[in-house]
Amino acid sequence: MEQLKQKIINEGQVLSDSVLKVDSFLNHQIDPELMQDIGEAFASRFKEDRITKVLTLESSGIAPSVMTALRLGVPTVFARKRKSLTLIDNLYSADIYSYTKQETNTISISKDYIKSDDIVLIIDDFLANGQAAQGLIQMVEQSGASLAGVGIVIEKGFQHGRKMIEESDIRVESLAIVSSLENGKVTFKEDSPR
Amino acid sequence: MEQLKQKIINEGQVLSDSVLKVDSFLNHQIDPELMQDIGEAFASRFKEDRITKVLTLESSGIAPSVMTALRLGVPTVFARKRKSLTLIDNLYSADIYSYTKQETNTISISKDYIKSDDIVLIIDDFLANGQAAQGLIQMVEQSGASLAGVGIVIEKGFQHGRKMIEESDIRVESLAIVSSLENGKVTFKEDSPR
Repeated sequence: MEQLKQKIINEGQVLSDSVLKVDSFLNHQIDPELMQDIGEAFASRFKEDRITKVLTLESSGIAPSVMTALRLGVPTVFARKRKSLTLIDNLYSADIYSYTKQETNTISISKDYIKSDDIVLIIDDFLANGQAAQGLIQMVEQSGASLAGVGIVIEKGFQHGRKMIEESDIRVESLAIVSSLENGKVTFKEDSPR
Repeated sequence: MEQLKQKIINEGQVLSDSVLKVDSFLNHQIDPELMQDIGEAFASRFKEDRITKVLTLESSGIAPSVMTALRLGVPTVFARKRKSLTLIDNLYSADIYSYTKQETNTISISKDYIKSDDIVLIIDDFLANGQAAQGLIQMVEQSGASLAGVGIVIEKGFQHGRKMIEESDIRVESLAIVSSLENGKVTFKEDSPR
């Protein structure tokens, strides 16, 4: 997605060989027009899949997810992150490990909002080691719903998240795939294949 | 805002005389078309105010805020919640007490995204005791930016949040004002005056 790549080049901050900060348009400040374009791009890639629900994770997944759901004409649900979970009644949940923060969080969604007859599209802002995506996938599996695929705004192609997800025969669509952050420079792969 | 009130009546769960749960369209699952209408409603109420930035609080404020910002043609920024804050360099921050969770959180935004020449519109999902709104207002004050007002999706009119904010001569616009939740029934006040 060309305007996303341009935005990453113009505004992304390369903090190390593995950390790309995009706080000016996605993770802290949000560019709503870019989110609208991102929503259109995801909706277009999954338009044949009869999606009934878009699932994401708070907080940075919410903006792209709402725009995708708007374009697909379906609701979106955001999973909540909590340090630990005492009340797990009526919840699907999964533990995800954050390499950046070096901590495990429990993420959860209410059973009220993903049902076994749903066709779910997972949307997230970043794909790196695939921990968050795997957690969301596990909750979809718990619900018995079908999973149409995973839509990622920015994929770190040099980490193993995509490989891990595709090994389960799950489709991954990323709007920008960063192949390297070496020497403070963002290099992109081509768009993920259709 | 009529369709919002209908949605609250049809889907809101009155858990007590003070707790209204709207997880089916705002706080967990999100109705993107309703969010679009909410964004239009806020943008219309503040269209003369030359807003340059919409400020909200993760996570439930993000969807209405992105839609408002899209309609106004400006970026939105979401404040982050953290249990405590060690690194406060380059951050505006405020402590807010949650009566529901009985805990204090530090909320913060980067100084990069609210500047002294900004005209800020604060958007939040709920207004009850005004703790979250006051925290957001404090950060706008720290930045030296102008504050155009506070836009609230659902106000609990029987709590004192509005009074507290209006005492500082800050404009509050709520799209639905609940005057009572007694006997398990949602009663609305008229729309907030223009």
